Amino acid sequence: MTQVELAKLNKTSPQMRYVSKDEGMLLELLKTRIKEGKIVLIKNSKRKINPCAVGEGLRVKVNANVGTSKDSSSIDKELRKMDVAIKYGADAVMDLSTGGDIKKIRRLILKNSTVPVGTVPIYEIAIMAAKKRGHISRINPQDILEILEAQASEGVDFFTIHSGITQGVIERLKKQKRLISIVSRGGSFIAEWMIVNKKENPFYEYFDDILRIAKKYDVTLSLGDALRPGSIADATDRPQMQELITLGELADRARKNNVHVIIEGPGHVPLDQIEANIILQKRLCNNAPFYVLGPLVTDIAPGYDHITGAIGGALAAFYGADFLCYVTPSEHLRIPDEEDVKNGVIASRIAGHAADIAKRIPGALNWDKAMSELRVKRDWKGQIKKSIDPIKAAKYRKSSISINKDFCTMCSDYCSMKIMEQCFK
Amino acid sequence: MTQVELAKLNKTSPQMRYVSKDEGMLLELLKTRIKEGKIVLIKNSKRKINPCAVGEGLRVKVNANVGTSKDSSSIDKELRKMDVAIKYGADAVMDLSTGGDIKKIRRLILKNSTVPVGTVPIYEIAIMAAKKRGHISRINPQDILEILEAQASEGVDFFTIHSGITQGVIERLKKQKRLISIVSRGGSFIAEWMIVNKKENPFYEYFDDILRIAKKYDVTLSLGDALRPGSIADATDRPQMQELITLGELADRARKNNVHVIIEGPGHVPLDQIEANIILQKRLCNNAPFYVLGPLVTDIAPGYDHITGAIGGALAAFYGADFLCYVTPSEHLRIPDEEDVKNGVIASRIAGHAADIAKRIPGALNWDKAMSELRVKRDWKGQIKKSIDPIKAAKYRKSSISINKDFCTMCSDYCSMKIMEQCFK
Repeated sequence: MTQVELAKLNKTSPQMRYVSKDEGMLLELLKTRIKEGKIVLIKNSKRKINPCAVGEGLRVKVNANVGTSKDSSSIDKELRKMDVAIKYGADAVMDLSTGGDIKKIRRLILKNSTVPVGTVPIYEIAIMAAKKRGHISRINPQDILEILEAQASEGVDFFTIHSGITQGVIERLKKQKRLISIVSRGGSFIAEWMIVNKKENPFYEYFDDILRIAKKYDVTLSLGDALRPGSIADATDRPQMQELITLGELADRARKNNVHVIIEGPGHVPLDQIEANIILQKRLCNNAPFYVLGPLVTDIAPGYDHITGAIGGALAAFYGADFLCYVTPSEHLRIPDEEDVKNGVIASRIAGHAADIAKRIPGALNWDKAMSELRVKRDWKGQIKKSIDPIKAAKYRKSSISINKDFCTMCSDYCSMKIMEQCFK
Repeated sequence: MTQVELAKLNKTSPQMRYVSKDEGMLLELLKTRIKEGKIVLIKNSKRKINPCAVGEGLRVKVNANVGTSKDSSSIDKELRKMDVAIKYGADAVMDLSTGGDIKKIRRLILKNSTVPVGTVPIYEIAIMAAKKRGHISRINPQDILEILEAQASEGVDFFTIHSGITQGVIERLKKQKRLISIVSRGGSFIAEWMIVNKKENPFYEYFDDILRIAKKYDVTLSLGDALRPGSIADATDRPQMQELITLGELADRARKNNVHVIIEGPGHVPLDQIEANIILQKRLCNNAPFYVLGPLVTDIAPGYDHITGAIGGALAAFYGADFLCYVTPSEHLRIPDEEDVKNGVIASRIAGHAADIAKRIPGALNWDKAMSELRVKRDWKGQIKKSIDPIKAAKYRKSSISINKDFCTMCSDYCSMKIMEQCFK
């Protein structure tokens, strides 16, 4: 039985117990929210890991994308990136490989990851079509179901499925005159197939079959936003909204079939439209958990998109986004390396934690309070240990002055905390 | 005559013309806002530079702090940091030196800076007291006016003056039981003086004399927030609000005396309290420009406080903060180096620009649109040139693939933009 089925029967799974304890959420409330589709426990029933729990009232979670491309297809490198992502606190990883031996990479990631693993199955499907039939658009619908079944049976915990890009959406896209039409890689594969074959999106047509596979392995469906804006100027337009309406309808169908479902969201969004994007997603999708990529609040900072994404992610999470897909400094420039992965995970975790504090998630502020107590005592070893990245904090401190001094090189003796301690003694 | 006096007489200065053109704001509107105290043109009347215009309807500006401390007192290093800050787009720099030959450093910064220079005069005042009379608390009020006059006559463009920390504020601070009482260095110097000498804050007592000096040289007063929270848990409390009320009253006095005035703000503030902080400042200070330090939205990320500050700064600027004081990755750990300065300036500029887009500042979105147009064309040279940091963007690109390829290593051939270009041809 899936976690949703169990919750509907008011049964308690070990996963529910784990999440209830880990997050400090009453088991009954957790079960109610699972039943309502407001919380999902991402974990394939075949995998022996803790689930990644995503949704209302829980800590914001962070996903890190890894995976090869044609021009960067080292398996070892991707496994190292996965390790770095998990070491710095990613709650899930997605394998987005499109180069080299895709199956082998996925199996190794599944074998080695201690956190849930997601994929975008259209990548393997399209690349198989290209190999077998000469072009990525020569997918036949049976391929889709076979590959989904194969990936699910291997243990993939969540799938990005672009079921919302229908012919109606493409019509609206043509009329919209976006600066950048589609920036979702999977979305562009499907759009091409639909345009070349003049047929409806098979991920929409065969959604019931997809649900059947997801249910069998309790795979969480992450409904992809093929129409997410790729430019600030394109945000929150008709094609994006048209797709979101369909995603909401599909989410209802998933829930009726006791399949965990979350919704993917933008993308490039100006600060003033982030709140509206969250309200819309929550309304149109009946409060399904929201998984956002960024959002990036400006287009002009390649090399710093972990920062543009942290700004948007913090705000999105504060308004109710539940799951942040990291953005690395390499976004828009190249495939990330290990250092990029580290910086991306940390930036997203900062964003998520800032939102957790603002949303009064139980215990979130305690970390900050503990840090402040160490600061006022000038306990440098303690501060470093409590830091989100103790290695970097230690490096900074040690580069400048002995760790045993009770001030830092910013103020030296003229440390406000030392002065006030004297004053109030 | 000061710029405020000119505006009140409906006269137009070359500085007003420059700002009107540079920002695309009608001259009459600009003058009205200067008259009302909603916009200030930061520039000492003796300096031959363009002003830094700060306030309602203008682009968000960024300040970078440089300056020595006792344990890091190289003048060359600070001048290099100033150069880096200006190169990466800082609109103003503050010299916060407290170590070495403070006068000499300041004069060299004033000589070399092409942007307005601010100081926190209490530093020189306190350090002179320590040298002459053995302790920083042995300031005599005459010292204050002498040093202010000297700094203003040298050309300092703006002063941080902590006039709002009164005995009433300190009483409330004692009752508040903050995690960290005072984190403002200047604020702690003054608090110590007030506690040791059992007298009212001389910057409050002698405010009329300070106004007289500021008016003489058209120095902008930046009213400092000695009580800014230094921990998320201390934000928006009674001592902070008590000081802000006084700052509002002092701002009124400055305006009556035709002196430019801006208000300094926090600090460490959780995401959900940022909007309230801006509304309060604007209401209590009659819409005086707001100059914020961060705000930092969490305490747990030393080494990454340029990111925590960019999150808070973007949101603050969106709600109406006008001037962002950068925070560098070294905050809470050490005095920044050149790389830290660069990262701090860029993070704050990203925050400011994201807010400019969201506030529909004229022309702000054009930069993003131009970048998107280059992206869809896969014009890598153009994208790099348009980037906020072309050097970093070029380094990333060149580390991975030839600049002439029309895709990047993230997707290789499977580039959504290439695919969609084909589809819609």
